[in-house]
Amino acid sequence: MSKVKKEFSIEDMRHSCAHVLAQAVLQMFPEAKLGIGPTIENGFYYDFELPRTLIPEDLPLLEKKMKQIVKQNQKFVGRDIDADEAIKFLEETGQKYKIELVEEFKKEGRDLTFYENVMPNDGKPMFVDLCRGGHTDHTGQLGHYKLMKIAGAYWRGDEKNPMLQRIYGTCWKTREELDAHIKQIAEAKKRDHRVLGKKLGLFTFDEEVGAGLPLWLPKGTVLIDQLEALARRKEDEHGYQRVRSPHIAKEELYIRSGHLPYYKDSMYPPMEMDNEKYYLKAMNCPHHHKIYAAEPKSYRDLPVRYAEYGHCYRYEDSGALFGLMRVRSMCMNDAHIYCTDEQFESEFKKVIELYLYYFELFGIEKYQMRFSKHNKEGLGKKYVDNEKLWIKTEKQVQDVLDKCKVPYVIAEGEAAFYGLKIDVQVWSAIGREFTLATNQLDFAVPEKFNLKYTDKDGEEKTPICIHRAPLSTHERMIGFLTEHYAGAFPYWLAPVQVRVIPVGKDFVKYGEEVLEELKKAGVRVEIDDASDSLGKKIRNAEMMKIPYMFVLGEKEVNDKNVTVRSYATKDQEVMTVSEFLKGEK
Amino acid sequence: MSKVKKEFSIEDMRHSCAHVLAQAVLQMFPEAKLGIGPTIENGFYYDFELPRTLIPEDLPLLEKKMKQIVKQNQKFVGRDIDADEAIKFLEETGQKYKIELVEEFKKEGRDLTFYENVMPNDGKPMFVDLCRGGHTDHTGQLGHYKLMKIAGAYWRGDEKNPMLQRIYGTCWKTREELDAHIKQIAEAKKRDHRVLGKKLGLFTFDEEVGAGLPLWLPKGTVLIDQLEALARRKEDEHGYQRVRSPHIAKEELYIRSGHLPYYKDSMYPPMEMDNEKYYLKAMNCPHHHKIYAAEPKSYRDLPVRYAEYGHCYRYEDSGALFGLMRVRSMCMNDAHIYCTDEQFESEFKKVIELYLYYFELFGIEKYQMRFSKHNKEGLGKKYVDNEKLWIKTEKQVQDVLDKCKVPYVIAEGEAAFYGLKIDVQVWSAIGREFTLATNQLDFAVPEKFNLKYTDKDGEEKTPICIHRAPLSTHERMIGFLTEHYAGAFPYWLAPVQVRVIPVGKDFVKYGEEVLEELKKAGVRVEIDDASDSLGKKIRNAEMMKIPYMFVLGEKEVNDKNVTVRSYATKDQEVMTVSEFLKGEK
Repeated sequence: MSKVKKEFSIEDMRHSCAHVLAQAVLQMFPEAKLGIGPTIENGFYYDFELPRTLIPEDLPLLEKKMKQIVKQNQKFVGRDIDADEAIKFLEETGQKYKIELVEEFKKEGRDLTFYENVMPNDGKPMFVDLCRGGHTDHTGQLGHYKLMKIAGAYWRGDEKNPMLQRIYGTCWKTREELDAHIKQIAEAKKRDHRVLGKKLGLFTFDEEVGAGLPLWLPKGTVLIDQLEALARRKEDEHGYQRVRSPHIAKEELYIRSGHLPYYKDSMYPPMEMDNEKYYLKAMNCPHHHKIYAAEPKSYRDLPVRYAEYGHCYRYEDSGALFGLMRVRSMCMNDAHIYCTDEQFESEFKKVIELYLYYFELFGIEKYQMRFSKHNKEGLGKKYVDNEKLWIKTEKQVQDVLDKCKVPYVIAEGEAAFYGLKIDVQVWSAIGREFTLATNQLDFAVPEKFNLKYTDKDGEEKTPICIHRAPLSTHERMIGFLTEHYAGAFPYWLAPVQVRVIPVGKDFVKYGEEVLEELKKAGVRVEIDDASDSLGKKIRNAEMMKIPYMFVLGEKEVNDKNVTVRSYATKDQEVMTVSEFLKGEK
Repeated sequence: MSKVKKEFSIEDMRHSCAHVLAQAVLQMFPEAKLGIGPTIENGFYYDFELPRTLIPEDLPLLEKKMKQIVKQNQKFVGRDIDADEAIKFLEETGQKYKIELVEEFKKEGRDLTFYENVMPNDGKPMFVDLCRGGHTDHTGQLGHYKLMKIAGAYWRGDEKNPMLQRIYGTCWKTREELDAHIKQIAEAKKRDHRVLGKKLGLFTFDEEVGAGLPLWLPKGTVLIDQLEALARRKEDEHGYQRVRSPHIAKEELYIRSGHLPYYKDSMYPPMEMDNEKYYLKAMNCPHHHKIYAAEPKSYRDLPVRYAEYGHCYRYEDSGALFGLMRVRSMCMNDAHIYCTDEQFESEFKKVIELYLYYFELFGIEKYQMRFSKHNKEGLGKKYVDNEKLWIKTEKQVQDVLDKCKVPYVIAEGEAAFYGLKIDVQVWSAIGREFTLATNQLDFAVPEKFNLKYTDKDGEEKTPICIHRAPLSTHERMIGFLTEHYAGAFPYWLAPVQVRVIPVGKDFVKYGEEVLEELKKAGVRVEIDDASDSLGKKIRNAEMMKIPYMFVLGEKEVNDKNVTVRSYATKDQEVMTVSEFLKGEK
C-alpha cells in the first residue's frame, strides 16, 4: 500500500534530508553500506561504512550532489514490506547493517516500511531505505540544510562493533533559522569551555590522575573561591550553617541511604579494608543526615540548614566524559534543609529566591524549572504512600513558583520515589541550554536515618528535608559561565582583575607602586613588565580577557594617575587608582 | 656474677618501681602471672594475668604494700643466668609468659639477667624477675611514685593472645615533680579534645561512616573556616596561589611519586575500575606537581607557590586511631614551593616566619624544630647523590634557623631520601607536647615528574620543591588548639563569639535588635531567649565557653546599651554595641 502524506513538519524535512544525504553518498561511493540515519535536535545524521575515510572537503561535494537530488523533486513513496522480502532486497544490495536491523525487527514482530525515492516523471527508482517515515512529499521540500561535520561512531554504539563514519547535518524551515544556528555554533565553538579553559589557564586534565578528574589551576581556583565566597555570603544571610564531611563512608551507610541498592552503577567501586567496604560518596546527603543526627534537636532548632561545598565522585562511562560538563569528580554547592511541614513553603520560597538572585547576578535571562510531581496510581508503589503530604507540598511548590513568577513546566508522574523534584534549566548568552541543578524534597530519608526533633508537645517528630544546589557543581557552573561570558568574566569573578602595563622600562617602578596599591586594596592584579611593545602587551591582556588594563607612561607618572582601558567597552579613561577603586567597589 | 650499681638515674628508679609493684601484686595474688614491666615516659607499667579483674580501689592497697617493701630497703641484686636454668626456675613458679620470653631470647642467643630483691639483714629472697636492669641499690630509693590507672593489654600486643591487666604508675625524683605531673594529667583530662569536642559540638564520629573519619558539626566548621581564612590571608600576603585537586588518582601517579612502592601500607586500598586502579591520595604533592607541569614555566614565574587545604586519606590501624589526633581522613594546610637553588634560602626563611607568626598568634610559647640532615656515608644509597646541594641547603636552613632564633635540635643522618626535613613540635598551655607538622625539601621529585622551567639562558632546568604545612591538618590543629585553649577559643576563632541574654521575656525584643546589629557587623552571635533564670543562662553560656555574654535588662533597654560579661576575665562592663565592636575589631 502506498503511503502519501499531505502535511509535513520540520521533523519530516530532516528525515528527508537524511535520505537525500544517503543517496548522495551512494552516488559518491556505490559500495557504501548504510547504518542508521535518524533526526536529531537541529538536524539529522547518517552513519556509513565507506571505502575510505571522509575528509572535510567531501562535505561540499556531497552537498552539491544533494542539491541535484533536491532539484529533481524525487517523490517519497512509503510502503509496508514483509521482513523476508526486505532481507532479500537488502541482500541483493549488500546492505548488511540494515539486514541486521530487519532481522531484529522481525523477531520483535514489528511492521516494516520502506521509503523509496522515485523520479517524478517516469517513476524511476533512485533510492530506497528501511524507514518508519514521515517524509516530505518530494526532495524539493528539504528546507534549508547544511552538512556540519564528520565523526566516528560504533555500529549500534557498541565498541565491539565496527566503527562507521557519521555525517551530521542541520536543517531548518527558513534561511534565517539556518543562519542563526550556524552563527550560534560558530559562537559556541569560540566559547567552548574546554578551549577557553586551556587558553585562560583555568583547569587541566592529566592522564596519570585519571579521566574526568579536573585539576584546577590557580586562575580557575580563583573562580572557585569567588563562587564559594558568594555562596557563603548568601547562605549566611539565609541562616545556613556550614558543615564538613569526609569523602568516603562504609557500605552500611549507602545501603541505608538507598544509594547502593539504587545508584550503584554511578558509584566508584569499593575499597576493601579491615573486612569492610568503603565507598567514595556520590552525594553529600547521607553525611549531612549523620551530622543532623549527632546532636538532639528541638522544634526551636528548626529549620536546620546545613551547607557544604561537598566533593562527590560518580562513575561515568569514559566515552560520556565531556570537559567540565560530564566529569567523575565534582564539588557541589550542596545544602540540606530540615524543617517541619509548616516551614516547608517559606523555606522553599527562600531557595527559589536564591536561584533568582543568582540568575540576575549572572545575567541569565532565560531559565525554566521542570516541576516533577507524583501521580495517584503510583502511590505506595512508585511513590512514598502519603497522598496528603504529596498534595500539600506540591500545592505549596506551585504557589511559590507562581508567586515568584518563575517559568516552569509540570511533569506529571516524574517525581522521585521520595518526593517532588525541580530541575533547573538555564540558557547561556548565546542561547545554549544547560541543566544546572536539581532540587528535591525528601519525605523518606529522614525516616530511614531516624532523624527526629522534639516538638512543642514533647513528642518526637520527623522533619522533611529539602536538597538544593543553586550554584550547581563548580565544574558545571564554571563550564557554563565560561561559555556564557565567553571567558570574559565580570570584574568580581575574574581571575585577574587588572593588568598593569608600563609602556616602557622607565615606568616599571611606577607600575610596581600601582601594583602594590591595588594589591593592598585586595585587587587581583599582575604587571606586564616585559620589554614588548605596547601593542603586543595590550593584545596579550585582551587575549586573557582581563577586565581592565592600567596603561602607564610618562604622562601618568607625572600626573600620578593611570589610563584605564576596559576590555568590555574598549573605552579608555584617565583616573587615579583610588578613583578606580571607588568606581569598582 | 653479682651486679652492683653505684649511681642511679630516674630510669633506674622507675625500673625498681616496676619490680616493687610486681612484688606487691604477688603478695596480693600469689597465683599472678607476670607479663612485662618496662619503664615509659613519666613512669612505668607492669602487665599481669590475675584471678580477678582489678578495680580502682585496688590501687591504694597495692601502694600500701609497695610502701612496706620500700621501708624494708630490699637490695636489688643482678646476676647472669643460663637460659635453661632460668626456664627451670620459672617453671617452678609457673611464670609461663616469662618462660616464653626466655625461650625466645635463647633462640636469639642473648645473655640473660635475673634481678633479685633480698632482705638487707638476712639476704632472704623476696622477689626475682627476668630483667636487664639497671636498678637502684635498694627499694628505699624509689623516689616519688603513684599508681595511676588500670588498663587491658594483649600479651605482646597481639589480639590473638590473652588479655592481661596493666597497671600504670608514674615516678619522679622529687615530690614537686610528681605533684606537677599529677596536676598536669588532671588538667589535660579536663582539656581532652574528645570530651570538649562533644561538649562544645565541634565534631562527631559515626560508626556507619567509619572509624577515624571525623564529621565536622557547624561549630567545628567555624573553626575550620576561620583557620582557612587565616591561612588564605597570610598566604596571599606571601604570594601563594591557590589550587584544587581531586582526592583520587590512578596507580601510575603514585608509582611515579614513590608512594606506592614506599608508602602503600599507609594508603587506602585501591578501587578497580575500567581496568585501572585508583587510590585515595595520602598526600597532595603529586597532584600539585601535575598542576605545575600543566603549563610551561619560565624563570620569571618562579618561585611558584601552590597552596591547597587538601583532604588526604591514610590508613591507620583501627587500634591506633585517637580522637582528632590519629585519624584516617585529614585536611592539610598544604603548599608546595617550586624555586631555584638561589631562591631557596629566602623562601625557606619566609616559611619559618610564617610558623613564628602562627606561634605568636596562638600563644605557643614553647616550640622546637627537629632538623634532620643527611650523612656522607648514605649518599647515593640512603640519600640522593648530590653532596653539594645537600651541604648548601643544609647550611642555608641552619642559617635561617639561627637568624630567626628558632630553637632546634639536629638529627644527623635522619633526613628523608629526597632531602632534608624539619619536624615541628609545640607544647600546649599546660605543657603537653604535640608534633604539628613537617617541612621537607625535595631534590628528587621534581626530576621524577619532569618539572622544568626555562632559565634566563634559555636552558631547561629543574626547580627544587619545598613542602610545608604550618597549620598542620585541621584535625590535629583543632585537636591541639582545643586542649591548648581548654575549649575557650579566642574571640576571632570562637564558633559563637557573643551570646545575647535578655534577663526576661520583656527584653527579648531589644535582644533581637542587638542580635541583628551584631549579625550585620559579621559577629557570630546567638540569643538565649528561653525562659530560664539569669543564673542558668549565664551558666549555660559559660559551659559553652562563649567569649562574651551581652546581658540585657530594663536598664540596658532604657540606656540603649548592653552589659558585656567576658568569659576570660569574668569582668562586666556596660557599653553600646558599637563601642564593643570598635574594641573587638
